[in-house]
Formats: sequence, C-alpha cells, structure tokens
Amino acid sequence: MASLVLKFGGTSVGSAEAILLVADKVKKLKEEGNSLAVVVSAMSGETNRLLDLANKFKAEKGKAVDFLLATGEQVSVALLCSALESLGVICHPMAGWQVPIQTDNSFGKAKITEITPDNIVNLMDDGVVVITGFQGVDQSNNITTLGRGGSDTSAVAIAAAIGADECRIYTDVRGVFTTDPRIVSDARKLDVITYEEMLELAGLGAKVLQIRAVEFARNYNVKLRVLSTFNEDPGTLIIDEEEGMGMEQALISGITLKKNEAQIMLSNVPDRPGIAADILGPVAEKNIEVDMIVQNIGSNGIADFTFTVPKLDFDETVMILNNLSNQLGGSIISGDDKIVKLSIVGVGMRSHAGIASKMFSVLAAENINIKMISTSEIKISVVIEEKYGELAVRCLHTAFELQSTISK
Amino acid sequence: MASLVLKFGGTSVGSAEAILLVADKVKKLKEEGNSLAVVVSAMSGETNRLLDLANKFKAEKGKAVDFLLATGEQVSVALLCSALESLGVICHPMAGWQVPIQTDNSFGKAKITEITPDNIVNLMDDGVVVITGFQGVDQSNNITTLGRGGSDTSAVAIAAAIGADECRIYTDVRGVFTTDPRIVSDARKLDVITYEEMLELAGLGAKVLQIRAVEFARNYNVKLRVLSTFNEDPGTLIIDEEEGMGMEQALISGITLKKNEAQIMLSNVPDRPGIAADILGPVAEKNIEVDMIVQNIGSNGIADFTFTVPKLDFDETVMILNNLSNQLGGSIISGDDKIVKLSIVGVGMRSHAGIASKMFSVLAAENINIKMISTSEIKISVVIEEKYGELAVRCLHTAFELQSTISK
Repeated sequence: MASLVLKFGGTSVGSAEAILLVADKVKKLKEEGNSLAVVVSAMSGETNRLLDLANKFKAEKGKAVDFLLATGEQVSVALLCSALESLGVICHPMAGWQVPIQTDNSFGKAKITEITPDNIVNLMDDGVVVITGFQGVDQSNNITTLGRGGSDTSAVAIAAAIGADECRIYTDVRGVFTTDPRIVSDARKLDVITYEEMLELAGLGAKVLQIRAVEFARNYNVKLRVLSTFNEDPGTLIIDEEEGMGMEQALISGITLKKNEAQIMLSNVPDRPGIAADILGPVAEKNIEVDMIVQNIGSNGIADFTFTVPKLDFDETVMILNNLSNQLGGSIISGDDKIVKLSIVGVGMRSHAGIASKMFSVLAAENINIKMISTSEIKISVVIEEKYGELAVRCLHTAFELQSTISK
Repeated sequence: MASLVLKFGGTSVGSAEAILLVADKVKKLKEEGNSLAVVVSAMSGETNRLLDLANKFKAEKGKAVDFLLATGEQVSVALLCSALESLGVICHPMAGWQVPIQTDNSFGKAKITEITPDNIVNLMDDGVVVITGFQGVDQSNNITTLGRGGSDTSAVAIAAAIGADECRIYTDVRGVFTTDPRIVSDARKLDVITYEEMLELAGLGAKVLQIRAVEFARNYNVKLRVLSTFNEDPGTLIIDEEEGMGMEQALISGITLKKNEAQIMLSNVPDRPGIAADILGPVAEKNIEVDMIVQNIGSNGIADFTFTVPKLDFDETVMILNNLSNQLGGSIISGDDKIVKLSIVGVGMRSHAGIASKMFSVLAAENINIKMISTSEIKISVVIEEKYGELAVRCLHTAFELQSTISK
C-alpha cells in the first residue's frame, strides 16, 4: 500500500477505449490498497485543435490562449472520471486552480511556485483524485499553462507536494531504452537509470519524459518511474545516483542519435576576448538554437570555432555569419548540413577511464571520421557524417554490450 | 455612456466569422464609451459534442459532467477575447469560478446563490470583461452548470449584481414577434413587452429567451433587451408592467402555437378528494410532463378530467391510466394525439373584457371546434384539431390587428 501519483499522456487518453484501459489500470491499483492521485494531459491532438482555433484570430500566447488551452486537460479529467465512475470507482475531478497549483504569470510557460497539498490529500482518502496536468493559476487567479509537456512536471510537482512514494509517468513506450529500438532491434529496456543520465538522454532526444520534470524530480527527490499504459512491464525507475551505489554500475546506459543537425565551422578566427559572443550573439538573436560549441586555439593566436544548429536554420546561420565578416576579420566560414550527433551517456564513465578511447576505436574500425567531439561528465558526443549515424549506433551498442540478454 | 451586460448565444460564437462579428459589435459599443461585461455560451454544437463524449462512459450528469461541459463556454470566452485583442480591445477572460458566481451543488441544474461583483466591476474599468455563461462554482469549489440555456440567466444575474443599466441578449432573431413569422408572414416584431407576457410567451414556445432569465430579470428589476447579433435592429425591450403604464397598451401581444401535444380525456370519474392526484401521480412518476389540466364536475357527482401531455408520451400515458382502472372506477379513457394548443397572451386582457369571446367567435367563424379551454390572468389557451392550427393563428393574428404596419 503506497501513495502514488500516476500521469497519463495524450495517447493514453486519446480515445474512449484508451481511457477505459487507463480507468481499469487505476481501478486495479486502487483495489490493491494504494492511495492515488492521477494527472492527465489533453487528448492527443486536442491542444493543436485549440491552437488552430486561436490562430484564426492570430492569437499565439497570452492570458486568453492559456484560458483556452486549459480546457484540453479539463476534458480529459472529466472523461477519465466518468470512466472510473462507470467502473464503480469514487473519484474527484480537479482543475489546477482547485488544487491550487500556484504558478508565476508567464502565460504559456508558467513555472510552478507552490502546491497546497491539503485538498488532494483529503480527497485521496475516499477516492481517486484526478487532476488536470499542464496548468495552474497565478496570484491574480488567472489560469496559466506550463508549456508543452508540462503535464509531466505537474505530476512530479504534485508527487513532491503530497510526499508520494512514487510518481509513475505512463506513456506509449515500455520505458527508457539503451538506444532507439528502431535503429537497434535488440536495444534493451533499462530497469534503473539515474536522474543525471535521464537528463542527458532526454535532452538528446529520448523523448519519453520532459526534461523539466526530471530536474524537478531530482531537486525534490521524487522517485520517478516511466512505464507503458498498454502493458504490465514495470518500466524504468529513475533514481538518485547514491541509491544506485550498491548496484553493479553499467559503464554506459544509453546511446542517442540526434539527426537534423548542421555544423558551422569558422577557421582563422582572431583569438580575442568576446569573439565567441560576437559570433553567437547575432545567431541567438534570431532564436536559432545552438547545441554543441567547440573552440580550439592555436599557438599562433588564431582559433577554430565550430558549432551546431538545427538543419532548418543552417542557411540563415551562414547568412548571418557572412554579414559579420567585419567583426570576424579574415575568418573562413564553412558548413556541413549532412551530419548527425551521436552521444553515449552513463554515470559509469566518471569512474572508468578509457570509455572515450573505446568509442573512438569502434568508430575508427568502421572508418567513420569524427568531425567534432564534445564531452561532459557523463556524456561524450561526436559529430559524424549523416550516412554513418545508424551504423555507428549499432556498432557502439554491441561494443558496450548494451543489447538485451533476454532471448526473443 | 452606460453599463451594459451583453450576452451572445451559441450561434453568435459558432464560427470564427461570427466571433469576429461579435467582437466588432463589442468594440463599437466600447468605443461609444459604454462599460461592458460580455457573457458567452458554448459554440453551437459544442455542448452536444461534449455530452456525446461523456455518454461513451454512460455519464449523463454529476460533478464530472459539469466539469466537462464548463469547458464549452471557456473556449468561447477565450476565442472572443482573442478576436477582441486582434482588434486592439483590452479584455479579461473570466470563468464562473473567477467571478465568482456562487451556486448550489445541484450539478447540471445549479441555481445561482450569489455573485460577487467586485472583480467584474474593477476589470470593466480598463477593458471588456468576457465571462463564461452557464456555469458557476459551489461552496466546495466544484464547477457547476446551470442547465441548458443557463447563459441567459448568467447574464441577467451578472447584470443584477453589477447594477448594469441594461442586459442585452443577442440571438439570431430580431426580437420577440407577435407570432411565429413562419406561420404569419407579416408577424410584427414587438418593441416593448412586459416580463409577464414574456414569461407566458417563453413558456409557450417562443424560444428566444430562457424563462428562468426572465423571472430573474423581473425579480431583480433588470432591464432586458432581446436583439439580433446579425443586424442593427434595437430588438425588443422587456420591462416591468408599471413602466409601460403610459404607453397605449395593446390588447394582446402575441399568439403561440404548441404542436406535438396530445390530449387525454377521462369521463365518468368519481368526484372524490384525491382523484386528481390518483390520476396524475403515476403519470408524473414516469417523468411525463403534464401541461393543461381541466376538470368539470357535473351535478351528479361525476367528473370529466382532461389533460395534455407531449405527443411522444401519449401511448405510455394511456397505458398507465388503463392500469389504474381499479382506482378510477368506471372511468372511460379516451385520447387524441392530433391536437395543438393555441394561446393568446397579453397584459391588456386583464382590463379588457370580451377578449375570450372575441377569440372564440373568430374560431367559430372558421368552423374550428374548441376541445379544451384554459385561462390565466394574461393568457387564454385552447386545444383545437391539429389541422386547423396555423389557420387559427392567422385568423386571430388578423382579428387582433397584430400585423406589421410597416409596408414591406
């Protein structure tokens, strides 16, 4: 018997059949004696439908748009409650303002400032509390939304507020995998992963869980589990590194491949203070997201500066830099939009030397040239030619023995 | 410069084009210096769409259904605000709970208990306040709905609470007519009508305005105006009878025809206390709505008892009565489902004798047989054969000189 927060995403409440499946799962957990709060997203497609309505009046963000979008989760909560009631489960629908989930007033990307747990805790005693994800209320009682994927954050924040034993994020995948199973067919589902690894994996494109939610869970020490609505697999538990100390620590836990990137190289850049800002400032001003940044400084006071941007922004970035030729002196600008970024992630690499060299050897053995390298404490990323992306993932997955050991 | 509450129904906010039309109207009224609160219904069809979703889980009413339905108006408010903002009008979206509009906890048919005007009044100073109709919040902070058509009531209640100079109900008709223009082509739009007349007309089927809203307006002395979203006609003003004293009072203000009725006749009913309850109790238990009731008692202690029910419930009603033969002694049950109810309404009939006899003469001149008569202070209703319904309306409309005097 535990106190659990369950979160179901848009696909899990995307149809009457799916909602009944969720209701059934909730009912079973309740009957096992658990104390439950359930957080739901809008039905898949609903938020886009609402945004399309708003766009007819050129409204993209603001108080009215949040007022609009908040209805999406409200509908899901109502329908899940109806389904639960049809199965004889007592339940209590709650909108963000009813909890209340206090936020700041940044409409469309509000941050949760406080959750008063009393209403939820009291109602959990005699039934299942079903709460709208993704939304809250600011100090002036305006409805706010947390931005895309904010329902994960709502769930974790609620779990922290009520001191839940576990926060379970139900999705349409079985958990977190060592790599994309579409690339490596025997990719293994991880039973346990640390917050830090999850953060690196989430940021790299393993989109099972919103990165803000993982940060929140780490900061408030909420035990987080990612699992599938559509089967009984226990999923992946996300824990603090210390908690995992006793376990045999895998060297690396996952490999990710980020496509749709492009690389920009500036050579012969004068090595003077502020040059990086001169280059990246005008790029950031255009809201172009810069990912990897690498700079080498030669002994002659001339630097090479390389960074990556989304492929879609490649042409614009090159144009911006060409317009900067005055500031950049005689820099030579070149670029490549046929690249991918490949990363291996694992807290194990902190204590085991040689992971980087093993990675580079594996790639070399396949004659894959590395065009850029960047490392963090628990991650090594390389940029390679696009055409080698999936081959490289497969080779590394095998080399680091990440594959499933269960015979299929 | 006045303080106005404007209410727009589902058709008026049923599409982006309609919403822009509404926004334009609101903007003009604001620019004329009026202080405005706007109440909106759900987009036409939206409430039914939501109910269909709930019905997939056999949910028809209760806390969760109100939680669901309330999203309909929330969407309308958000879209109207977006449209107003696109025209440069400052506006403030408000849900029922934000006002707050306090109600009891009868989900699906909640009654408004109190409206705190401060939030609305304060926000009206610097912009247009746009409020969800049809909904409120109970003492436990649950979302409630007022039932179908409740948005009219919301508007009137808000007008009463903030002491508005006028409450304007915008619909898709020009106002209240002397009779259905589809029956009488030169039916006249009434410029002024009393609350009492409106109540009788609304109850009889002139469905421009919810009856609860009219009662509310009368009780709180709110000046009410019914007008069209889609033209500039000033519509029909609904006022207190005393206010109209100085006007030349028309004898009657309207004629209504209620189809889909059936008549049940019991003859030879024993005239004893409780017999009416014995007859109607079992009918009411089946939720069959009884409209007219007429009883004649003969000198021999034997009564005739006649009443009307919706045509759809005719067969069931006859069956119920047949099962009551024990209590009803030797009563003879007969019925007729080919009838209509025709009513003339007017406060003028209080002071003018002879309206009833004029009505009966007009019908007699057309050889129309009257099967049942029932009167109230300002209304006379008759039941006649279905096939004569529209003919009777036309003859009476002419006889009482209700037609439009404006040449077309």
